[in-house]
Amino acid sequence: MIVRLPGSAPTRSRAVIHDNLVFTVAVSPDKTASYYEQTKNALARIDQSLVEADSGKARILTAIVYIADMQHKAEMNRAWDEWVDAENAPMRACIGAVLEGNDLVEIVVTAAK
Amino acid sequence: MIVRLPGSAPTRSRAVIHDNLVFTVAVSPDKTASYYEQTKNALARIDQSLVEADSGKARILTAIVYIADMQHKAEMNRAWDEWVDAENAPMRACIGAVLEGNDLVEIVVTAAK
Amino acid sequence: MIVRLPGSAPTRSRAVIHDNLVFTVAVSPDKTASYYEQTKNALARIDQSLVEADSGKARILTAIVYIADMQHKAEMNRAWDEWVDAENAPMRACIGAVLEGNDLVEIVVTAAK
Repeated sequence: MIVRLPGSAPTRSRAVIHDNLVFTVAVSPDKTASYYEQTKNALARIDQSLVEADSGKARILTAIVYIADMQHKAEMNRAWDEWVDAENAPMRACIGAVLEGNDLVEIVVTAAK
Repeated sequence: MIVRLPGSAPTRSRAVIHDNLVFTVAVSPDKTASYYEQTKNALARIDQSLVEADSGKARILTAIVYIADMQHKAEMNRAWDEWVDAENAPMRACIGAVLEGNDLVEIVVTAAK
Repeated sequence: MIVRLPGSAPTRSRAVIHDNLVFTVAVSPDKTASYYEQTKNALARIDQSLVEADSGKARILTAIVYIADMQHKAEMNRAWDEWVDAENAPMRACIGAVLEGNDLVEIVVTAAK
C-alpha cells in the first residue's frame, strides 16, 4: 500500500510512504529567512512529515540538501548539526543548485518507517 | 533478483527493478523541443519504462526533476500537471542544474512495483 | 535494523544499510586530482563502502553523479566505463552542480545488499 501526504499543490505529495520506506521533501515556508533559519524551518517540516508517517529523525537513511549558494554551506551545517540525531546520522550530500524563487535550501529525505 | 532494462549506453541501465521498487530515468529523445515538449517526451519514456517494469504512473513514489533553466519551470509544470495521476501524486523536487548538451529536463523516478 | 558506517563528520554517515538496501556517497579524498582521477577515487570509495555493507558493484541499483563542470563529463565517463560491471549496469544520471571546495565529482549510490 502507498500512502501519500498532501503537498503544496494537488499534483505533488509532501511525503509518500510505501512498505517500510518514507520519502519526503521540504523547503522553508518563510522565504525571507537566512540560510540558517531556512534550513531550520525545512528540517522542522521534515520532522513533522516523518512523525505523520510513523517514522522520525532517528530513522532517516539519506538526505540530499540542495543549497542555492554553496558559500553558505556553513550556515546550513550549523542548523543541521543542531538538529541531527548524531547517534543516527544519515548519509548526506550537499549539492549547489538553482532553487525556485527565494528558496535557499531544499531537503529530500528517505527514512525507514 | 535485480532486473535491468538496457539504456542508451551499455554501461548504464534505463531502469532497474529490485524487490518491489523500480528506479528509472529519462530525458527527451528530441533535443530541439521546448521545455513543455521535452518534459512531455521524458514523461512518456518514464511511462514506457514503468510499464515494462510492471509498475505504472499511479505507483510512482518520488520524482526529481532536474531543469536546465528554472525560469521555465511553469512550462515543465504544465506538462507534469497534464500527465500526473493526481489521485496518486508523487513526492517531487524540481532542481535547477546543468544538463548534458541540449537536454532541458531530466527526470529520475522511484516507483513501487 | 539500520546500520550506519561513520563518515567524515559525526553528523553524517558514509553509508547506511536498511533491510536489503544500501545507501552510500563518496567524493575523492584527493582534491587536486583531475576529473578522471577524482571519479576513479570516488568510485574506489564506493566499492569499499559496498564491501563493508555486504553489497558490491554488481548490485548497484542507481547512481547519481554530480559533476562540477559538465564539459568534463567525458573524463568522468571514462573512469565510470572502466569501473562499472557492464553486465550489471546501474541506472545513472549525471547532473551538473556546484560542489564543495575543489570536489569535481560527488557520487550517490543506492545498492541492493
